Amino acid sequence: MYSPSIRNADSSPVGPVKETLAIGMDIGGTNCDIGFVNQHGACLRHISVSTQSHACFEGFRDATLAAIREHLQQLAGYRCVGMGIAAPGANSRNGRVTDPSNLGWPDICLTDAFGRFLPFPIYVTNDANAAALGEKKYGFAKDLNNFVLLTLGTGLGAGIFVDGKLLLGRSGFGGELGHTRISDETRLCGCGQMGCLETYVSATGLRRTVMELIAKYGKSSGALSHLDFHQLTAERVGQAAADGDILALEAFEITGSVLGKKMADWATVLDPEAFILFGGLTRAGEFLLDPIQRSFQQALSNFLRDPIPVVLSAVPHGEAAVLGACHISEFLHQTQEV
Amino acid sequence: MYSPSIRNADSSPVGPVKETLAIGMDIGGTNCDIGFVNQHGACLRHISVSTQSHACFEGFRDATLAAIREHLQQLAGYRCVGMGIAAPGANSRNGRVTDPSNLGWPDICLTDAFGRFLPFPIYVTNDANAAALGEKKYGFAKDLNNFVLLTLGTGLGAGIFVDGKLLLGRSGFGGELGHTRISDETRLCGCGQMGCLETYVSATGLRRTVMELIAKYGKSSGALSHLDFHQLTAERVGQAAADGDILALEAFEITGSVLGKKMADWATVLDPEAFILFGGLTRAGEFLLDPIQRSFQQALSNFLRDPIPVVLSAVPHGEAAVLGACHISEFLHQTQEV
Repeated sequence: MYSPSIRNADSSPVGPVKETLAIGMDIGGTNCDIGFVNQHGACLRHISVSTQSHACFEGFRDATLAAIREHLQQLAGYRCVGMGIAAPGANSRNGRVTDPSNLGWPDICLTDAFGRFLPFPIYVTNDANAAALGEKKYGFAKDLNNFVLLTLGTGLGAGIFVDGKLLLGRSGFGGELGHTRISDETRLCGCGQMGCLETYVSATGLRRTVMELIAKYGKSSGALSHLDFHQLTAERVGQAAADGDILALEAFEITGSVLGKKMADWATVLDPEAFILFGGLTRAGEFLLDPIQRSFQQALSNFLRDPIPVVLSAVPHGEAAVLGACHISEFLHQTQEV
Repeated sequence: MYSPSIRNADSSPVGPVKETLAIGMDIGGTNCDIGFVNQHGACLRHISVSTQSHACFEGFRDATLAAIREHLQQLAGYRCVGMGIAAPGANSRNGRVTDPSNLGWPDICLTDAFGRFLPFPIYVTNDANAAALGEKKYGFAKDLNNFVLLTLGTGLGAGIFVDGKLLLGRSGFGGELGHTRISDETRLCGCGQMGCLETYVSATGLRRTVMELIAKYGKSSGALSHLDFHQLTAERVGQAAADGDILALEAFEITGSVLGKKMADWATVLDPEAFILFGGLTRAGEFLLDPIQRSFQQALSNFLRDPIPVVLSAVPHGEAAVLGACHISEFLHQTQEV
């Protein structure tokens, strides 16, 4: 079989043209998922490194580098073109994780920390932007240029595409929709402000709503009142709703209607082609989606006449950020300032 | 003096290379301003055609075309490269004025209506986007790629730049910030919804607030209570505030603080480099700006640490839309679908 070969500028032979791969790294609070993805989007290898079991960032970094090198050696038939890192609070503009407190790390520049040891470019973005990149490359948003992907997990994140590009803004903090404000400003957010949307619309927000409803009605809900705040997961509230528990159903109704109303506001700002919902909380299905749709349609500006679809992500939950991270370079290349 | 000359593809002489000009047309409810602007941004001619004095759109169109042709003849030393039209409710994506009710016209495609009679390309956008284009080309935003220009006039419009380009969205309705919603949903908007921002933040909104305050306190304000709703202009409320009228001062305080809070929300979505305020209502100066700044700073997300300037437009009020309209083509060219 014919193998085309190319030469370096100095005419030294560099061997046959290799297929390329990109590395996508998704750093979470518990684990760091690393995918080695070829140019067709197929994940050749998928490994997981513990984030929590290392005493400091350097320990985590060295374990990750060792794993990456080992797998690249085994994938010697491929040429690695770059690595994208997705992490909560990570900033595409400067490569830093600005508030890595839940990872127990100091303020770190991930681009430098890994770039020093790897012979290919490193790109960084936050987990929600990476999921939006994954959705754009492989999911529902393949043919969309203007869309909003919402990650409904422990918090509420978002990746916004405007005119085919990620909206990053001045300092890389564009799209922090979880910290837009709702009218009821009675809940304190982890960011220090009152009334941020994610104090209602997130797994944690749902738990707070259940607590508030128990307080409001002053009587026990059969399924939920024997659980404390930590036991009260979104899954358990979802199960209670499926069993017909009125309090659980009301909690989802509140969560969905608060979000739907805010989505109508963003639609007026951004005029997107679609909203795409992603993350653990969406497993609640119609209990969450129905009130979102109702409240969104009711609050939507009259001049946005054509329907704006609200859909669930088409990318598997475990893979979106890893796949997306592989493609950070493609979308950020021209706006990256690091 | 040497004049370079070029030839058409068929080798026929086309004369010396001419300087170029663009036409900017700003269609308002009363008058239509037309500017002939050279490539350095100098307005060579500025004419005004009455919008109201014609029985139908065709009458207005013919009067405008005649004026344009006459002035182009007098400017024969220039080659016209295109015309940009700014009009309230005009849509860049399809060239249409979708709700031209205040102009007394039917639903019209301006691109077709003028393009049929003129030998250069026609581009269309709404008045707020045109003002933002003018600000980007000649004003405070010259070196900014991410900013929000707010037009505070009879209504509240906005032109948003993201990554150096106008945010248009799916169907050209991006940036309709006057129709985002505030928590107090007691006021009916012209669009048919309750609680749109412009029912508070606009010249009309200010008048409604004065009316509400007179109703609230049940006593007359020396300067304002003898005026009816139509006499109560923003200028008169501004004059009353300057004279120390407590009710007028409170009306501006409410207007500014409602807007500042909403601006903080948009900052969380867009992370802009600046907010630029434009339009008649800004003549109120510190009476409006002080409460905007206070409320904006207080509501701004903690992670947007670097200050986001809130400034007044640097482009003269009468010229921004005309100048901006001349440059629609430059900014819209790649996204225009007409």
